[in-house]
Amino acid sequence: MINKVFLIITIIGVPLSVIGHLLHFSPLVMFGVYCLTIIALASYMGRATESLAIVTGPRIGGLLNATFGNAVELIISIFSLKAGLVTIVLASLTGSVLGNLLLVGGLSFFVGGLKFKRQTFNVYDARHNSGLLVFSVMVAFVIPEVFSKGMSEQNAISLSIGTSIILIFLYLAALLFRLVTHRGVYTQEGQNVAHEEETAEWTTKRAFVILALATIAVAYISESLVETFKIVGESFGWSELFIGVIIVAIVGNAAEHISAVIMAYKNRMDVAVEIAIGSTLQVAMFVAPVLVLLSLLFQESMPLVFSYPELIAMFSAVFLTVIVSNDGDTNWFEGAMLLGAYVIIGIGFYLF
Amino acid sequence: MINKVFLIITIIGVPLSVIGHLLHFSPLVMFGVYCLTIIALASYMGRATESLAIVTGPRIGGLLNATFGNAVELIISIFSLKAGLVTIVLASLTGSVLGNLLLVGGLSFFVGGLKFKRQTFNVYDARHNSGLLVFSVMVAFVIPEVFSKGMSEQNAISLSIGTSIILIFLYLAALLFRLVTHRGVYTQEGQNVAHEEETAEWTTKRAFVILALATIAVAYISESLVETFKIVGESFGWSELFIGVIIVAIVGNAAEHISAVIMAYKNRMDVAVEIAIGSTLQVAMFVAPVLVLLSLLFQESMPLVFSYPELIAMFSAVFLTVIVSNDGDTNWFEGAMLLGAYVIIGIGFYLF
Amino acid sequence: MINKVFLIITIIGVPLSVIGHLLHFSPLVMFGVYCLTIIALASYMGRATESLAIVTGPRIGGLLNATFGNAVELIISIFSLKAGLVTIVLASLTGSVLGNLLLVGGLSFFVGGLKFKRQTFNVYDARHNSGLLVFSVMVAFVIPEVFSKGMSEQNAISLSIGTSIILIFLYLAALLFRLVTHRGVYTQEGQNVAHEEETAEWTTKRAFVILALATIAVAYISESLVETFKIVGESFGWSELFIGVIIVAIVGNAAEHISAVIMAYKNRMDVAVEIAIGSTLQVAMFVAPVLVLLSLLFQESMPLVFSYPELIAMFSAVFLTVIVSNDGDTNWFEGAMLLGAYVIIGIGFYLF
Repeated sequence: MINKVFLIITIIGVPLSVIGHLLHFSPLVMFGVYCLTIIALASYMGRATESLAIVTGPRIGGLLNATFGNAVELIISIFSLKAGLVTIVLASLTGSVLGNLLLVGGLSFFVGGLKFKRQTFNVYDARHNSGLLVFSVMVAFVIPEVFSKGMSEQNAISLSIGTSIILIFLYLAALLFRLVTHRGVYTQEGQNVAHEEETAEWTTKRAFVILALATIAVAYISESLVETFKIVGESFGWSELFIGVIIVAIVGNAAEHISAVIMAYKNRMDVAVEIAIGSTLQVAMFVAPVLVLLSLLFQESMPLVFSYPELIAMFSAVFLTVIVSNDGDTNWFEGAMLLGAYVIIGIGFYLF
Repeated sequence: MINKVFLIITIIGVPLSVIGHLLHFSPLVMFGVYCLTIIALASYMGRATESLAIVTGPRIGGLLNATFGNAVELIISIFSLKAGLVTIVLASLTGSVLGNLLLVGGLSFFVGGLKFKRQTFNVYDARHNSGLLVFSVMVAFVIPEVFSKGMSEQNAISLSIGTSIILIFLYLAALLFRLVTHRGVYTQEGQNVAHEEETAEWTTKRAFVILALATIAVAYISESLVETFKIVGESFGWSELFIGVIIVAIVGNAAEHISAVIMAYKNRMDVAVEIAIGSTLQVAMFVAPVLVLLSLLFQESMPLVFSYPELIAMFSAVFLTVIVSNDGDTNWFEGAMLLGAYVIIGIGFYLF
Repeated sequence: MINKVFLIITIIGVPLSVIGHLLHFSPLVMFGVYCLTIIALASYMGRATESLAIVTGPRIGGLLNATFGNAVELIISIFSLKAGLVTIVLASLTGSVLGNLLLVGGLSFFVGGLKFKRQTFNVYDARHNSGLLVFSVMVAFVIPEVFSKGMSEQNAISLSIGTSIILIFLYLAALLFRLVTHRGVYTQEGQNVAHEEETAEWTTKRAFVILALATIAVAYISESLVETFKIVGESFGWSELFIGVIIVAIVGNAAEHISAVIMAYKNRMDVAVEIAIGSTLQVAMFVAPVLVLLSLLFQESMPLVFSYPELIAMFSAVFLTVIVSNDGDTNWFEGAMLLGAYVIIGIGFYLF
């Protein structure tokens, strides 16, 4: 059902985006069209990556997911960097972290919890993820923010580069750990690991073609989308911060949001958590540092220095998520807490 | 024994408070009289609420506790708000959080631990409470403090209102969760849950009358108490902050302090922890946001914006409490650590 | 093998240090000589303390370890205080905390993890240590830093003295707890506690003589070392902060670093963790407060007030260590995360 909706949006949205951009339709209308179309295309990219991951096995599949899982966000961000919108990029990274942890995580726990009294997932995975969340946000994001205040701008960039290299390195090390050296080491007794044998939705060739086409279309539309930010912000009275943290983050992650909630409703919490927290870690440990390094090629370099409210919001979100998820046991109330935190932080950014 | 002491204090203190106030006795003397009398009356309110809770069952009882458990504090705070003493109200909320977690919690663990090598309580309750503590202090208190610095005063009030509504909403949701949807779901194997059948101390009618009379008396005396703050502060060289954080907090919570320690000494750690941490959560998720909303009716609105030292002190206290209590296992040394933290923070506020 | 290297360094280094100091050899060369010699002498002090600890039993042995375990650091710091280098002392305390948790802990987990898939240690010890880490850094270090900003200098010293007394008191209480009241209470089922009977390397008399001689030599050389800091810093472009946080910390703790890693490689994680985290707690709860109290005897008093970057770096390190170690289960990836955090923080201090 949801796939049909995405098909219709894609068929209408892609040509409309091209025409609207060329004929200079109202930026406010086109902003909506671009957002919807990107969401629909992102779902195609997700399904194509899934199909490829099943065929290639968990190791290559993990790498594929790592690369394409947040591809939409990466593409929008690169165009924003090219346009010199460093503030929006940092804001949208913040928004991805917040959205994935609190909105996706919260909705999954809440909706799943309405159907099941208690839902569980592998407690070792939960702890592994907690460690990575604390490492990336409490260390790798906090240190550059705090230290950059007593530094020249050049040194802040150097610190950002160093931190980014360590983040990417550890991201790859984490893949090595989970997929190679410690595959199956941290399994939990009594945990049902034998899910039904998954079959790929599409053939490898077809998946490749869809992935390529969708990526090109997303890239094209993202560039148009970025151009509308200024006018949309002025019209609605939204700050750059709010557009980045809330709007771009929701558009860039909508497809994942939906599948996480569906998985939670099917009581497959391992998958739902993997999407919510795993996706956060991709953003924090891969997308963010790659953007820092890529930004060196553009006119304006992007330091890994978030604004103080952004940092504190991520800090709070990580702290709450770690405390809630660390025992591998969730219920509707824990979901409600995460959602409540998202609303409070959202109001904060709206009024800022 | 302790009840007799409270009876005597009440019999002497209530008329003395009225006469002293009317005849303008020395404010320093009356400050002491008011404090002692309120402590004694608070114990009556506590016992009346207990009796009603036993008769009405855990659901209504939970609501009663939620409403009257921190009624004294609520009443003192409302009179302080009316007198425009916003700083003292925020300070006394801070003091309640610190006092309940570190002083009540610490004393309970310490005194209980002197008698028993190890004391345990339900680990699921511990984790549930940890989540709520992090939510209310690390998210709902932190975000308005940090974001309000870049906002107009009006927006800071709006953010405070939004945050307060979410807090109250989640407080009610937590009651729903514990008393209705998940009652008995998170019980621990081998945990002795069958405590002796409790019988109400007073009949329902009598409890109602006592509760009503004690509440009226507390309200009357609180108004007089608030008037003495200024002179007491000047005489002893205490800042408004110190009065609020240490003095008002101890007076407002003294009755609870005593019963928590008694429960710990009887090895009923579930009850002791419920008083220490449960009371903190009542203050943070119910009393504080209700006061924010009520303050809109007065001349000076109170934003949910604590001073930086207050926020950091609560942050530290919550962090330590979560780390110490999250495993549902306590001993005298953990109590000593909490008490040590209380002393350090107390010195800090005294010298500030 | 390693002991032979230390023997040779000692035989050459001690006379060379004396001669070089008297004949005013190049400070840059002598800086290197002093550092190496102190590292070698520290290993003798460690071995002598070990021998004495085995003979005297765990109780007195614990006290000996507490006193001599960080004696080198204490001695260097006292001479730095005497020279008025308060900034360097605070920085080297910071460096000890960071180095022990992230570098020693990280290397132990990583190297041990290369040989063993999973390594475990007593989960109760892990939680006890987590509590103490949070108490000392998140409470006892955070409160003076935050509160001192709104205080007179005199009050900041008073707050530091109060906090230091509480820290020392709790450090002694923790020894009492572990060695007397709760010895053997928190043992884990299935944990192999029966390590081979340890025999002292040296006789008591010999250990005493070595300990005394090594301590005197370290004291003498430390005084010379401190004098070279200024010139070394200017030559290499290192700030006082970097010298204190990275260089002094590594020199002061090198001997412990080596033995922790060796223990991890032998799968004796309890000992490795005890060295890494136990040593951090000694520094934070004993060395630091003792230095604050001793500094009152010198011209310039040292408040327990770290700079903001120092505090945040310790905060991050403690948070990460607690999350990683709290389950009593480690692997190479957790070690890599701690090392990654050390590198990021190291770059931060270098560029600051």
